[in-house]
Amino acid sequence: MASIIRVTKEFPFEMAHVLWNYDGPCRNVHGHSYRLFVTITGTPIDDQGNPKNGMVIDFTDLKSIVKREIVSVYDHSVVVSSRYEKAKRDQFVNLFGNTVIVDYQPTCENLVSDFAEKISRHLPSGVTLHSLKLYETANSFAEWFAEDNKRST
Amino acid sequence: MASIIRVTKEFPFEMAHVLWNYDGPCRNVHGHSYRLFVTITGTPIDDQGNPKNGMVIDFTDLKSIVKREIVSVYDHSVVVSSRYEKAKRDQFVNLFGNTVIVDYQPTCENLVSDFAEKISRHLPSGVTLHSLKLYETANSFAEWFAEDNKRST
Amino acid sequence: MASIIRVTKEFPFEMAHVLWNYDGPCRNVHGHSYRLFVTITGTPIDDQGNPKNGMVIDFTDLKSIVKREIVSVYDHSVVVSSRYEKAKRDQFVNLFGNTVIVDYQPTCENLVSDFAEKISRHLPSGVTLHSLKLYETANSFAEWFAEDNKRST
Amino acid sequence: MASIIRVTKEFPFEMAHVLWNYDGPCRNVHGHSYRLFVTITGTPIDDQGNPKNGMVIDFTDLKSIVKREIVSVYDHSVVVSSRYEKAKRDQFVNLFGNTVIVDYQPTCENLVSDFAEKISRHLPSGVTLHSLKLYETANSFAEWFAEDNKRST
Amino acid sequence: MASIIRVTKEFPFEMAHVLWNYDGPCRNVHGHSYRLFVTITGTPIDDQGNPKNGMVIDFTDLKSIVKREIVSVYDHSVVVSSRYEKAKRDQFVNLFGNTVIVDYQPTCENLVSDFAEKISRHLPSGVTLHSLKLYETANSFAEWFAEDNKRST
Amino acid sequence: MASIIRVTKEFPFEMAHVLWNYDGPCRNVHGHSYRLFVTITGTPIDDQGNPKNGMVIDFTDLKSIVKREIVSVYDHSVVVSSRYEKAKRDQFVNLFGNTVIVDYQPTCENLVSDFAEKISRHLPSGVTLHSLKLYETANSFAEWFAEDNKRST
Repeated sequence: MASIIRVTKEFPFEMAHVLWNYDGPCRNVHGHSYRLFVTITGTPIDDQGNPKNGMVIDFTDLKSIVKREIVSVYDHSVVVSSRYEKAKRDQFVNLFGNTVIVDYQPTCENLVSDFAEKISRHLPSGVTLHSLKLYETANSFAEWFAEDNKRST
Repeated sequence: MASIIRVTKEFPFEMAHVLWNYDGPCRNVHGHSYRLFVTITGTPIDDQGNPKNGMVIDFTDLKSIVKREIVSVYDHSVVVSSRYEKAKRDQFVNLFGNTVIVDYQPTCENLVSDFAEKISRHLPSGVTLHSLKLYETANSFAEWFAEDNKRST
Repeated sequence: MASIIRVTKEFPFEMAHVLWNYDGPCRNVHGHSYRLFVTITGTPIDDQGNPKNGMVIDFTDLKSIVKREIVSVYDHSVVVSSRYEKAKRDQFVNLFGNTVIVDYQPTCENLVSDFAEKISRHLPSGVTLHSLKLYETANSFAEWFAEDNKRST
Repeated sequence: MASIIRVTKEFPFEMAHVLWNYDGPCRNVHGHSYRLFVTITGTPIDDQGNPKNGMVIDFTDLKSIVKREIVSVYDHSVVVSSRYEKAKRDQFVNLFGNTVIVDYQPTCENLVSDFAEKISRHLPSGVTLHSLKLYETANSFAEWFAEDNKRST
Repeated sequence: MASIIRVTKEFPFEMAHVLWNYDGPCRNVHGHSYRLFVTITGTPIDDQGNPKNGMVIDFTDLKSIVKREIVSVYDHSVVVSSRYEKAKRDQFVNLFGNTVIVDYQPTCENLVSDFAEKISRHLPSGVTLHSLKLYETANSFAEWFAEDNKRST
Repeated sequence: MASIIRVTKEFPFEMAHVLWNYDGPCRNVHGHSYRLFVTITGTPIDDQGNPKNGMVIDFTDLKSIVKREIVSVYDHSVVVSSRYEKAKRDQFVNLFGNTVIVDYQPTCENLVSDFAEKISRHLPSGVTLHSLKLYETANSFAEWFAEDNKRST
């Protein structure tokens, strides 16, 4: 029973984004029901005295990390690139109560990269971020895998 | 084989909205992956010489009505109430290429009502709009039924 | 606890069909993963001595009716209209081990009507067929409701 | 925009149950991931000064009713009929921290009936319980509809 | 056409479990609709004379292994750790017709490990167990991968 | 933000097939609603002046490749092996407008292999086919991974 196991939990959130300078319909503000799948890996605790016996991580702990770092920030928000000219960016911030300014184009690919960095640095020891899958629509998603990006994390 | 049959087709689209004056997180612009289920009712054609034999309506025809009236208008857009003060509304229109101004609060309930009116007036004779279901998130939706609203359509 | 309750069970099956004389791509033989939802209605048995206490119908009984009448006949078959000229129909039967000849155009609408007749006549007393929903693709389906077709069943 | 609209929200919970005296495998304690769909009906508020403008009911309010009456009681519990002999029932209560004793056979049909009573009496005025759908497995569910049970609620 | 292909089949089952000594709500007996995805890998048979031509394994054979080793044992059962004191364990066995005693804490992580061992030893030659995915709820699952556990199987 | 990211898009199509010489029900022509998931991998473009900034590949480009190579060919078709005797094969072609003759047994395993070859040779430079997943029914699928087949592509 000392196997290495991968454990995944799904987190939905509702967000709008806009792709600056893009030549398709995503250059307009529009929204998606995002679904983030967080996969961590580790060896389940094998210790009868430990209340977390048999778990890689208690889901309650994983949930509180992902909710604090990702869901509470991005849910019901608009994500806008800092590369927008300042006047336009200020208009965004004034119009919307909850604007998140990021220093990259907020595509699904770049968001999942950024989320990987934000989650992995908060995991407890013995638990590793294996991968993230971010659905942008019901039939398309981007994935970040630790094994594809060994130097960057 | 002269039964009355209900036929449904699903249409997904990606939209942002903002609820003016609301006291929850939806007062910020945010987005959803909407899924609209359009249900029409009628008797399948029973005529061997008709290429649409056995169908209530050819899906190709239903799709072109719903795409023209709803999907092409609301997909990749932000929906904003005309009750916003004019200056703020103009800012919306300037910032976003594709802003749809509606004369109601764009909740899921009001959107589905408005869509029912827009679709039902374009259906061919012999075909009736039975109901619409509009998912706003993966686990919540609003529905309009003709039988609940007999006078209004 | 003497409520009237509707109970539904889903039955998947894999079938091919061809629409004779149709003017779209469905005039070619092609296939679908059909999903049939059978909804019956009745009052749950309220009798402690009855092993089916609390049930409208034992799912095992509903399953054996639907499997015998529908799934065992249509799963892994091709459905062809008897309106095809005899020579072509014979070719179908020779080429395919499992061809089902029906006296109607096998659209989703007509299939669900036919299935309603076939299932409703085998239900035990006290249990009524309420409706059938037949998914032809992941995002389109036809439905038959008893309340829409009171005379015909 | 004075339409009558139906609004639905899904609530998942994890429960075990046992069917006393049943003659199939459900006579053993076993569990399901239940999914309860609560549908209410009403006219969306049409009052610009009301923060709930455009809503039949604020989802936050619906959620707090269903969580308090159903989810907090039945999630992570075992449901057992009071018709069990007292000694066996006491053993259940001793063995499991969270046993819910109900005065009926806890089939999906009876549970959905009971939930309808528990939810409908707590809805605010102007909002009516339209129906409940309770999935017991991924492909079977029971439904309670107000229109089928007009006298009982 | 001599590619290496991974083939997956899903198996649902309904089970209750209890986590001895855990400090959250799972210390009570409760249930889930589990969904087990079994992925095997191999090279499809390339032999016209073989009725299994083009298959890595006939799904009928894979199904009979997984049904015999897993589904028939765990479906409609309660899983309990042998670490419970004997008197309490005996009560479980007396109360429930179908109790499975395992020598580990029955978390999703440990169950998927145990299932990997049970399935892999029964696969025919030429077919390897690649991975197992076990959904415990609709939005969380554990996975075992052969590549993560090369020594242990 | 120079991560390697995997990007996936789902493509549904409706197809019939027949397994020559098979000893189960698939030896009859029958159909499925296939769902093909195409996963490509690469580094998102990091160039403010490029309208595709932040994307590995524009979904519009990926869609046009997969639609041209796969969906437009196989949707609403019957797939038949060239190993059938010529007379029978000619009958197929005569009976069905859209018959695709392939030089292998059209199992899900062989189809996914063939699709991998057809898609990978058309991807633009900087983008690699990572894997394909092909659902044949709602609960079974075959997958091709580049890492499992390094020499063959």
